[in-house]
Amino acid sequence: MTPLSPTPRSTLTRKKDRGRTERAELHAVLNEGLVCHLGLVLDGSPVVLPTGYGRDGDTLYLHGSTGSPSMRAAATGLDVCVTVTLLDAVVYARSVNDHSMNYRSAVVHGRARLLSGDEKLRGLHALTDHLAPGSWEHAREVNAKEMAAVTVLALDLAEASVKVRDVGALDQPADVAADAAWAGVLPIRTSFGAPETDAECSVPVPAHVAERRVGPSTKPGR
Amino acid sequence: MTPLSPTPRSTLTRKKDRGRTERAELHAVLNEGLVCHLGLVLDGSPVVLPTGYGRDGDTLYLHGSTGSPSMRAAATGLDVCVTVTLLDAVVYARSVNDHSMNYRSAVVHGRARLLSGDEKLRGLHALTDHLAPGSWEHAREVNAKEMAAVTVLALDLAEASVKVRDVGALDQPADVAADAAWAGVLPIRTSFGAPETDAECSVPVPAHVAERRVGPSTKPGR
Repeated sequence: MTPLSPTPRSTLTRKKDRGRTERAELHAVLNEGLVCHLGLVLDGSPVVLPTGYGRDGDTLYLHGSTGSPSMRAAATGLDVCVTVTLLDAVVYARSVNDHSMNYRSAVVHGRARLLSGDEKLRGLHALTDHLAPGSWEHAREVNAKEMAAVTVLALDLAEASVKVRDVGALDQPADVAADAAWAGVLPIRTSFGAPETDAECSVPVPAHVAERRVGPSTKPGR
Repeated sequence: MTPLSPTPRSTLTRKKDRGRTERAELHAVLNEGLVCHLGLVLDGSPVVLPTGYGRDGDTLYLHGSTGSPSMRAAATGLDVCVTVTLLDAVVYARSVNDHSMNYRSAVVHGRARLLSGDEKLRGLHALTDHLAPGSWEHAREVNAKEMAAVTVLALDLAEASVKVRDVGALDQPADVAADAAWAGVLPIRTSFGAPETDAECSVPVPAHVAERRVGPSTKPGR
């Protein structure tokens, strides 16, 4: 895989030591996240909205109602920014100022492309595999009316950066020597609870739901 | 408390039934989140970055290095958008198209104000209380050099919207009748793991870390 190639927008300006340049690390962050935050400019103001996404190779897919102003705007090919953040821990330092968080984040810049036909279907497949792996095969397929009511966009993962903080407290030497306050890491865990079946459903919980674990949800190899 | 008053930017255009108008619901989402996604326009392009925040009453505080381009830009008073998203569940429907997520999200629009002096210190206090409640009292306080190296911004919670989805699968009647695929909710849980003490620290894990639970971290009454 080609490494991430920095452009001015995707070059880290702060904490450059936290930057990662392997494309596999970008894929790993995107695979583990469940929602992204989509940023675009509407009527001159920035707007940031949470939304689902999918990935297939180096294409990121977004979708929404054909009536959504943000989707309509993004479909015109204006600049967008898509950010996915995974929180791993709160980092407690000996000084208030050195408190931090451990995280993995991916920031993608680009212009989205409106999809139709087979590409649109492929995008919906990737979005479903990401949100609910196994559902594309298990649930009722998308019909023509539903296809017409959804906008699917593709964004190339060409201009992206990844940032990771994964170490403990980085205190000043004098604070370490003083040993006067607790320092360490409080991990943040995300997990799935027990599935809750709809009251009107008599189908047993399928394995792809019962055995789902937090982590990479996109099919291996993608 | 005054209810949330919609402006064109903060009026929901889609799924209006998911909108909430109580200021207490805005506060609840902000209290439970750990990071926000800050959106602004840099060199004509939208940029979305994850960052910590704090809240005191109807003021949201942001901070960052004085060298951070996004903080420097935000400090000039340009429009920003701050979004906090809490994911509660993956919603499996009988059709691929009706799959969804349960979530609570807050979107705040406004222009940030650069703080100094006592206001700046109050902002740092609120930011610390949010990231690590108890640390302001326990850890070494911020010194003058550290104060000079940090930018603290205040954003009024005047223009904000809250959106909540908290129901099960909303399938088409024909799909419910067919009863051919599983439908239900897979809850997403966030929790803290066991604290990991720094190797060079001999201070025992304090109660504010050991007993921390996910949920509202801002002091009651704020």
